[in-house]
Amino acid sequence: MIIILRPHAAPKQEQSLCEYIESCGLKAVSVPGDGRSVLCVVGDASALAADYIRSLDFVESVKAVTAPYRLAGRLSHPDDSVISVGSVSIGGGGFAVIAGPCSVESREQVCGIASAVKASGATLLRGGAFKPRTSPYDFQGLRSDGIPLLLEAKRLTGLPVVSEILDMSQLPLFVDVDVIQVGARNMQNTELLKALSRCGKPILLKRGWSNTVDELLTSAEYLMSGGNADVILCERGIRTFETATRNTLDLSAVPVIKERSHLPVIVDPSHAAGKSAYVEPMALAAAAAGADGVMIEVHNDPAHARCDGPQALTPQRFDALCKKLFAVRKAVMSCEN
Amino acid sequence: MIIILRPHAAPKQEQSLCEYIESCGLKAVSVPGDGRSVLCVVGDASALAADYIRSLDFVESVKAVTAPYRLAGRLSHPDDSVISVGSVSIGGGGFAVIAGPCSVESREQVCGIASAVKASGATLLRGGAFKPRTSPYDFQGLRSDGIPLLLEAKRLTGLPVVSEILDMSQLPLFVDVDVIQVGARNMQNTELLKALSRCGKPILLKRGWSNTVDELLTSAEYLMSGGNADVILCERGIRTFETATRNTLDLSAVPVIKERSHLPVIVDPSHAAGKSAYVEPMALAAAAAGADGVMIEVHNDPAHARCDGPQALTPQRFDALCKKLFAVRKAVMSCEN
Amino acid sequence: MIIILRPHAAPKQEQSLCEYIESCGLKAVSVPGDGRSVLCVVGDASALAADYIRSLDFVESVKAVTAPYRLAGRLSHPDDSVISVGSVSIGGGGFAVIAGPCSVESREQVCGIASAVKASGATLLRGGAFKPRTSPYDFQGLRSDGIPLLLEAKRLTGLPVVSEILDMSQLPLFVDVDVIQVGARNMQNTELLKALSRCGKPILLKRGWSNTVDELLTSAEYLMSGGNADVILCERGIRTFETATRNTLDLSAVPVIKERSHLPVIVDPSHAAGKSAYVEPMALAAAAAGADGVMIEVHNDPAHARCDGPQALTPQRFDALCKKLFAVRKAVMSCEN
Amino acid sequence: MIIILRPHAAPKQEQSLCEYIESCGLKAVSVPGDGRSVLCVVGDASALAADYIRSLDFVESVKAVTAPYRLAGRLSHPDDSVISVGSVSIGGGGFAVIAGPCSVESREQVCGIASAVKASGATLLRGGAFKPRTSPYDFQGLRSDGIPLLLEAKRLTGLPVVSEILDMSQLPLFVDVDVIQVGARNMQNTELLKALSRCGKPILLKRGWSNTVDELLTSAEYLMSGGNADVILCERGIRTFETATRNTLDLSAVPVIKERSHLPVIVDPSHAAGKSAYVEPMALAAAAAGADGVMIEVHNDPAHARCDGPQALTPQRFDALCKKLFAVRKAVMSCEN
Repeated sequence: MIIILRPHAAPKQEQSLCEYIESCGLKAVSVPGDGRSVLCVVGDASALAADYIRSLDFVESVKAVTAPYRLAGRLSHPDDSVISVGSVSIGGGGFAVIAGPCSVESREQVCGIASAVKASGATLLRGGAFKPRTSPYDFQGLRSDGIPLLLEAKRLTGLPVVSEILDMSQLPLFVDVDVIQVGARNMQNTELLKALSRCGKPILLKRGWSNTVDELLTSAEYLMSGGNADVILCERGIRTFETATRNTLDLSAVPVIKERSHLPVIVDPSHAAGKSAYVEPMALAAAAAGADGVMIEVHNDPAHARCDGPQALTPQRFDALCKKLFAVRKAVMSCEN
Repeated sequence: MIIILRPHAAPKQEQSLCEYIESCGLKAVSVPGDGRSVLCVVGDASALAADYIRSLDFVESVKAVTAPYRLAGRLSHPDDSVISVGSVSIGGGGFAVIAGPCSVESREQVCGIASAVKASGATLLRGGAFKPRTSPYDFQGLRSDGIPLLLEAKRLTGLPVVSEILDMSQLPLFVDVDVIQVGARNMQNTELLKALSRCGKPILLKRGWSNTVDELLTSAEYLMSGGNADVILCERGIRTFETATRNTLDLSAVPVIKERSHLPVIVDPSHAAGKSAYVEPMALAAAAAGADGVMIEVHNDPAHARCDGPQALTPQRFDALCKKLFAVRKAVMSCEN
Repeated sequence: MIIILRPHAAPKQEQSLCEYIESCGLKAVSVPGDGRSVLCVVGDASALAADYIRSLDFVESVKAVTAPYRLAGRLSHPDDSVISVGSVSIGGGGFAVIAGPCSVESREQVCGIASAVKASGATLLRGGAFKPRTSPYDFQGLRSDGIPLLLEAKRLTGLPVVSEILDMSQLPLFVDVDVIQVGARNMQNTELLKALSRCGKPILLKRGWSNTVDELLTSAEYLMSGGNADVILCERGIRTFETATRNTLDLSAVPVIKERSHLPVIVDPSHAAGKSAYVEPMALAAAAAGADGVMIEVHNDPAHARCDGPQALTPQRFDALCKKLFAVRKAVMSCEN
Repeated sequence: MIIILRPHAAPKQEQSLCEYIESCGLKAVSVPGDGRSVLCVVGDASALAADYIRSLDFVESVKAVTAPYRLAGRLSHPDDSVISVGSVSIGGGGFAVIAGPCSVESREQVCGIASAVKASGATLLRGGAFKPRTSPYDFQGLRSDGIPLLLEAKRLTGLPVVSEILDMSQLPLFVDVDVIQVGARNMQNTELLKALSRCGKPILLKRGWSNTVDELLTSAEYLMSGGNADVILCERGIRTFETATRNTLDLSAVPVIKERSHLPVIVDPSHAAGKSAYVEPMALAAAAAGADGVMIEVHNDPAHARCDGPQALTPQRFDALCKKLFAVRKAVMSCEN
């Protein structure tokens, strides 16, 4: 921790702060600066009350040297994590293609889409039963009726399934779901994160549309510090002033996450773009940028989808996208070897 | 609903869309424009699948004419709503001063602060028991032990109390809490909103730091459409590129909300500013801008507060602030009469 | 300057960096931290190439201790600056009311508005001749024909005048203009700032809609380091995701600027709000928050204004606003004495 | 133009508005809606004063049907534009690689880098002589001494050159520069755009860090409506709340621009990322997303670059990047044929 004092802080004030730091078992080194002093704390500063120090009127600012995520950070775990989902691995060099409808609507719909995306190369099936909608008048998903339909599609195709949870009371329904998704709105729902840290299943943690990468990793830390190391991160667009797209896909989050964390990161271009015409270019961009996979919404009849139809690809367009995705991945890989 | 077609949409396409609209019991009026047609839907367009229309490849855009919130909107309820909390009224011309510690830490702390803020003119007491912290390593509140301490301060001072809920499983603990707060992180936690719509208590709904005013009103609609009309809105700062303050207090939300909704709106300058020196000017600004009240964090010993100390006022500074607040309110009011 | 090294930076690398720092006449103090070292530079670090240090692969980050604005900062000039404009003073306890049309349209228009706003209590007259419009098809102002009309209104009323410059080639036309305005779009037009640093006139420098307070102060530094100390800052709204208002007025910038700088700061609620109904509450809020003045657009016939009519007040509404503004100022002041 | 009236607007008010519209030679069609009327204007609404209509107190909102850019829009020019720069074409299927130092520092520096990037496959050379720096104390470029050095590198290698202009007074120095760059800070410098619309040279127009795609296209319209059709657009990152990167590269702007405009669009990952480690993944992503080219900062000695060294690639890393770039382009292209 680095503590920058205000100009003209009294020596006595500085000394009292040093004594506080030492009373916590740490050492403070004072460095005289350009009209002010800087105190550097030697050792693990997590024992200090940063807020207390920050609130002192002779302190200008307090800067952390270490990130607030230890388990999610690369420092403690230099090698890439690989998360196993059934026979599928996410991270560590492979490329996961998660595809399926935004919302499970019927047995025919989800099974039909599942078979189609599997044929095109998808490795996991997604499908929402509990939908967090902005308006109370919008379709809220089939809820407890939706999960069994998704599981039928799993049995039919053999694809592991991903579905979103909204509240810990729904957990018993997810016993046969392979990956539990925490949506963007719940990235900082700390009670839900704590409950999921003990659920024994891989979690797909989506970045909140107004959260930084460091906050995403700190939410991953909630899961990991509670005992669940199987965390897959997902960039899905952030909120900016631009209205041409539903959200602004922050693809640079991919290399930033790769640098700061060992966890795999996938990209959801469908929710960021909000429009099917933009999904293909952004999915290809994600593959080129080094993501560990993509998550794509596919619907057999987007015009009649009960949720987010405008951003869904038809199975035909998804098939064409997969061909390009694999070609881009291969091109990047071949240059690296 | 207004549907703008793409240039050169075929007459046959336009006709099929009109037929769909009419099949839903509505009428479409086609207006030839500058190189393209515009369809205006006559009647209540909520029967239409907007997403379906938006996804048609000959449609450029779809614009809603009516807001997605009917119960929260001023159109359905032209007069200001007044929410009664015990003997206190919020909205309708009064000015609520909600004050207290960020986090309940001990009986002495919360009772001492409660007595002090009451003497200065506070009308409600705030105090958090369940704290949603960014990091799992930060203090998470006294949780179920905290609520009884807050209720002791209520009995001691007679002030109604406000406290934040994080999960519906905590609801039984809130039976004697007067106002239940939904924090910024939970503004779009639709499961929690649905549960609270049936709880029979006034809700203080904070704007998410990345949510628009319209989304705030749509979340209020979740509460109201479920049966709870006692909703108090709260502006507490939004996330922007500026880092000089913790968040950017969007005070213009006050007149915008007053125009669009009948619900009362209060302002929390403490969380937006993140620094006690900025709390006083922003609280005064809120009063001048026409807010129905403010919510201020007060702590007897900010330097040792277990949460958000840097933004807390001491009781002395809070007392000075109250004098100014009431003077500003009086000055604005006297010019209006 | 504080340099945080990466974990496991080699001692030899650290030593070479220390030698570079010493070769620049400074001293580096190394503090061993939690798995990494921190170097604190003693003395004025502006002699160092921060970019060079930042680019070293064993350096994690570089943090400046001192702000990049010395002349604009309060450290070098603890007392508030007061800018004299004719017989009017801006800053230092007074409250400036700058009012007038967005755009000078005719002699009658600007003279009529000038007389009206003077009668209501305005202390300076604003009026644009050169208008920077988003679209080339919009009215660009009367340009060189507009300045003489504004000067007629100055002669008629005795009010000093403020007008915006777009390019240094227009400077000769501004010889009798009292305050030259640099608009939000030009806040970082460094060539224009350099030219105006030598013009001998007070500058009203508006914050860019996407610039931080620190960047505003650094642009003030361009003017001041070139020799012009008469700089008035202006908050006019920043760009955020919220679309209910044209921009989001960042009123907390007022106390932040007061803390960091000695320069006066005024608030323009008209451009931020974009809608006349929001101008009054936000102007009152600015007065309550401690601004040194406000700048308000007034038009005798907003419906036919050639620019920004929706945000203009009529002279009648402006008169009512002034009464409230002075009452709010008086209320705040009386509590402070 | 679509005009949504407020609920309960009087029929007489609506009628007066229709008469105004008809007095401008257009027709208004009134469509009764859900509690309010909607007026659709038939014909080219640019003859109407939208601001006047918006300011009427019985009008709720006014929505434009047509974009404010006609010449830059794809509607008026369905085929992709191809801009010729010497023997190089930008747009229309090729892929431009613009590379070179952020700032021209010396003959040796710029000529050395030029030769290197040409050998790796660059098609144009970039180099800044006039640098718009945030702080007045930072290196401002070699200015008029820098352009001749860039032109020497052009003669040596045969590469056409791109350089940034800051003020129209510098135009005579650019007579042998092939493409004039307008930087992000100047995207809405309307006086500069007007001057450049008559300069007879291709313009590389960078998106402002706080401007929408529609504003970028409207700035292109300034150039085109003044007579200069040779406009190359450039996405270089926007300002958001995320601080992990210098700016957030908005790659979805590429498909959005391709849909709305016929102009070519290139991507500058160097300025967006601000860190060389992120440049390669983002450049590859740009190629995969369908950009017409990239602009990359290359420096032989990033550690000693006088400007933006941390984001510059060495010639060696640039060479490796080019191989991957061409492989990704080839992969995407081969799937399309």
